[in-house]
Amino acid sequence: MEIKIETSARHIHLTKADYKQLFGDSGPTPEKDLSQGDQACTEMVEISGPKSSIKNVRVIIPFRDYSQVEISRTDCFAMGIDAPLKISGDLPGAKIKTVGPMGEIEKDTAIVAKRHLHLPPAEAEKLHLNNSDNVSVEINTDRKTTYSNIVVRVKENYSTSIHLDTDEANAAGISGETSGELIL
Amino acid sequence: MEIKIETSARHIHLTKADYKQLFGDSGPTPEKDLSQGDQACTEMVEISGPKSSIKNVRVIIPFRDYSQVEISRTDCFAMGIDAPLKISGDLPGAKIKTVGPMGEIEKDTAIVAKRHLHLPPAEAEKLHLNNSDNVSVEINTDRKTTYSNIVVRVKENYSTSIHLDTDEANAAGISGETSGELIL
Repeated sequence: MEIKIETSARHIHLTKADYKQLFGDSGPTPEKDLSQGDQACTEMVEISGPKSSIKNVRVIIPFRDYSQVEISRTDCFAMGIDAPLKISGDLPGAKIKTVGPMGEIEKDTAIVAKRHLHLPPAEAEKLHLNNSDNVSVEINTDRKTTYSNIVVRVKENYSTSIHLDTDEANAAGISGETSGELIL
Repeated sequence: MEIKIETSARHIHLTKADYKQLFGDSGPTPEKDLSQGDQACTEMVEISGPKSSIKNVRVIIPFRDYSQVEISRTDCFAMGIDAPLKISGDLPGAKIKTVGPMGEIEKDTAIVAKRHLHLPPAEAEKLHLNNSDNVSVEINTDRKTTYSNIVVRVKENYSTSIHLDTDEANAAGISGETSGELIL
């Protein structure tokens, strides 16, 4: 079965309080609808580790009850941060400094996101998959790759797609939206 | 069969003439023996594209009869360079500026290196593999990955190992020297 694959660039989820500390009373300003019901904002932060900083990291809304920075392993080496591989939403992450125009925060919020498959309940039932199951996907490019340990995440408003990070997309020779062969 | 996997960081091969243009009459100064008979030098260049530059790119010797910069797809996006996926040694690559302490060069030398398997002739014969064949490797980490389209390269002084770039290593959750299961 062919399945949609999307690539997540580095981004940040924020609590309302952390947002306020970084941006004061302006925004957030949604700019683009994302596939799973979230929105990317015009607001961006700079993230910083012992070795270097990365600018233009996009704020994603709606606000959450935790703040979390999702970065690639390549970003980790560049910044000197050893962020754990975790499902988006799991904490704690590694300590990272986040700088906005009005202030900064330094918390254990940095993770590398585990590959995952978003599924709405009806689709999960059709595929006989449950939340936390693992699947694989074969990506048939000139850098042909099969990724396994892709965690299934079932939720009402999800649309069916696998999310990879930029390292995984680059290693498999894909960019933008593409598709692969789902292996159950 | 278990097989050694090594990760190649971005690096540059140079002709003697291009080296001289970048570094003048000093060096090259070998610092570290690499697995396939080459040596990494203390000398480093800065590489530069339309969007950004990357410092500390290591010079590899011996000199070759062509100059070539091997970078990751992540580097390509950061620098704004669309380097082709090619076997190390194949040219032309994408245009890239290379800056040394004594001068700079701008040539079509940037490629993203194809995954490859170094084999000495005796080992190739044992595995019934020929130059340019393709193999796969299964890497059993928390980011379990199978890479295919790994090009076999047979040469007298090679030692048996698969070379991945940093995107591929990071996507598969490996760093430094590791091993995987060779699939013929």
